[in-house]
Amino acid sequence: MRVGEGFRLAEQDTGSTPGFSADKKDAEQALDDGAAILAELQARLFAAGMLGEKRSVLLVLQAMDTAGKGGIVTHVVGQMNLGGVRYAGFKKPTHEELAHDFLWRIWKHVPGAGEVGVFDRSHYEDVLIGRVRSLAADEEIERRYDAINAFERELAESGTTIVKVMLHLSKDEQRARLASRLDRPEKYWKYTPNDVDERLLWDDYQDAYQIVFDRTSTSYAPWYVVPADRKWYARLAVQHLLIHALEELGLDWPEPDYDLEVERARLAAS
Amino acid sequence: MRVGEGFRLAEQDTGSTPGFSADKKDAEQALDDGAAILAELQARLFAAGMLGEKRSVLLVLQAMDTAGKGGIVTHVVGQMNLGGVRYAGFKKPTHEELAHDFLWRIWKHVPGAGEVGVFDRSHYEDVLIGRVRSLAADEEIERRYDAINAFERELAESGTTIVKVMLHLSKDEQRARLASRLDRPEKYWKYTPNDVDERLLWDDYQDAYQIVFDRTSTSYAPWYVVPADRKWYARLAVQHLLIHALEELGLDWPEPDYDLEVERARLAAS
Repeated sequence: MRVGEGFRLAEQDTGSTPGFSADKKDAEQALDDGAAILAELQARLFAAGMLGEKRSVLLVLQAMDTAGKGGIVTHVVGQMNLGGVRYAGFKKPTHEELAHDFLWRIWKHVPGAGEVGVFDRSHYEDVLIGRVRSLAADEEIERRYDAINAFERELAESGTTIVKVMLHLSKDEQRARLASRLDRPEKYWKYTPNDVDERLLWDDYQDAYQIVFDRTSTSYAPWYVVPADRKWYARLAVQHLLIHALEELGLDWPEPDYDLEVERARLAAS
Repeated sequence: MRVGEGFRLAEQDTGSTPGFSADKKDAEQALDDGAAILAELQARLFAAGMLGEKRSVLLVLQAMDTAGKGGIVTHVVGQMNLGGVRYAGFKKPTHEELAHDFLWRIWKHVPGAGEVGVFDRSHYEDVLIGRVRSLAADEEIERRYDAINAFERELAESGTTIVKVMLHLSKDEQRARLASRLDRPEKYWKYTPNDVDERLLWDDYQDAYQIVFDRTSTSYAPWYVVPADRKWYARLAVQHLLIHALEELGLDWPEPDYDLEVERARLAAS
């Protein structure tokens, strides 16, 4: 799923399940099993962060509407301890945000030492909808790819492992999911007429994503394209990417920075 | 559990399970059952918030160390969709925070329309550790109770349902929990020598909590004292308090603000 040289988004199968041959039921069990592993690894990072470890992890989630970002946040991010998770959902920029460079609002939400940051949409919107809807001048859009790489290099060099995920959905599956939002009263609020406006620009968005992959999938901040027609697969895949990123940190539970025996005695006497 | 006239903290049984007579195993099932109810109610509030509803909910968690705030955040708050939850953990104030009124840093984290805010510690620290350790002048501490009431009234009048919870632990149970942190390498990081320093001031803290209840348990922002010697009970109780607060909002799924038939046709044609 890692985007490398010569990657073509258009050639990817959105219904495939690379690396996992089992069915939905097995996947749910695997997701449960993974939850305990993910929670422990995140707790180790958080614990280390309390005792001087400077590293962190940042998960960037991008996708077309209905691809399942919300489900990933609930079912995968929610497996970790909220106290150590810095979640940020980026919506349409405010006036104040637009009065600054596009990275200004992003910087405020990068994870601190020991944290797992989660970007639900991100600075990539500024070269996706930004490009497709010409929200900035062409030269400004062009400038942003290098700016993004410089920003991500800065984060990586200061200790943040960056995992960028595009949930890749087919156009037909999106129609089916939008239709289900128009069929169920408890889903109506998830739909806005703008969803179809955006859908009509599907090919432009796919092209904009391809450019993003060509220009910003780097050694220090690679992109992963996760087939998302099957929700269970996408959740499992993102869970594994997080587990892998945390494992790579190689963290053990930190040594105490106090004298165990002294403290046991103080506690017993208290 | 609601703090009313004449409430005495010292008379509360930290090992009791008011309103729930079953055992731990039944309680775990009940917590699972409640998760779906809580998640749906929160989703309704979030949905309504997207369509103009201004109300929100704020859960304030206070407790002595080891009482289980972290577990509540993971096992109860984590049952909701993170996208609609505004979590804030308040630690020792920074220089910048100390240069402002004690409510300055709090205001930044109050929930917006449709959100469930969660304060893991809060402005009450400024009249708890603030009082016990004389971190401010006596007159300033005295002033803060009224300031807190005015602040909470302002929030309530602008649409925030405030639920304040003190997890009430016995001193013996705290010793046992701290001891277990000194017994297991994966828990060492949760302990600091300061935990015993604070423990030695146990009675002063209980007195400070009593004053908090006497002066800040109001009709618009009541306190609930939740017995916390049994973790399963405390989680279930806080889950029920959140469910109750959300139910009281009386929210249904919002009506669509677009024409369903028009949108179905547009989608089918796209």
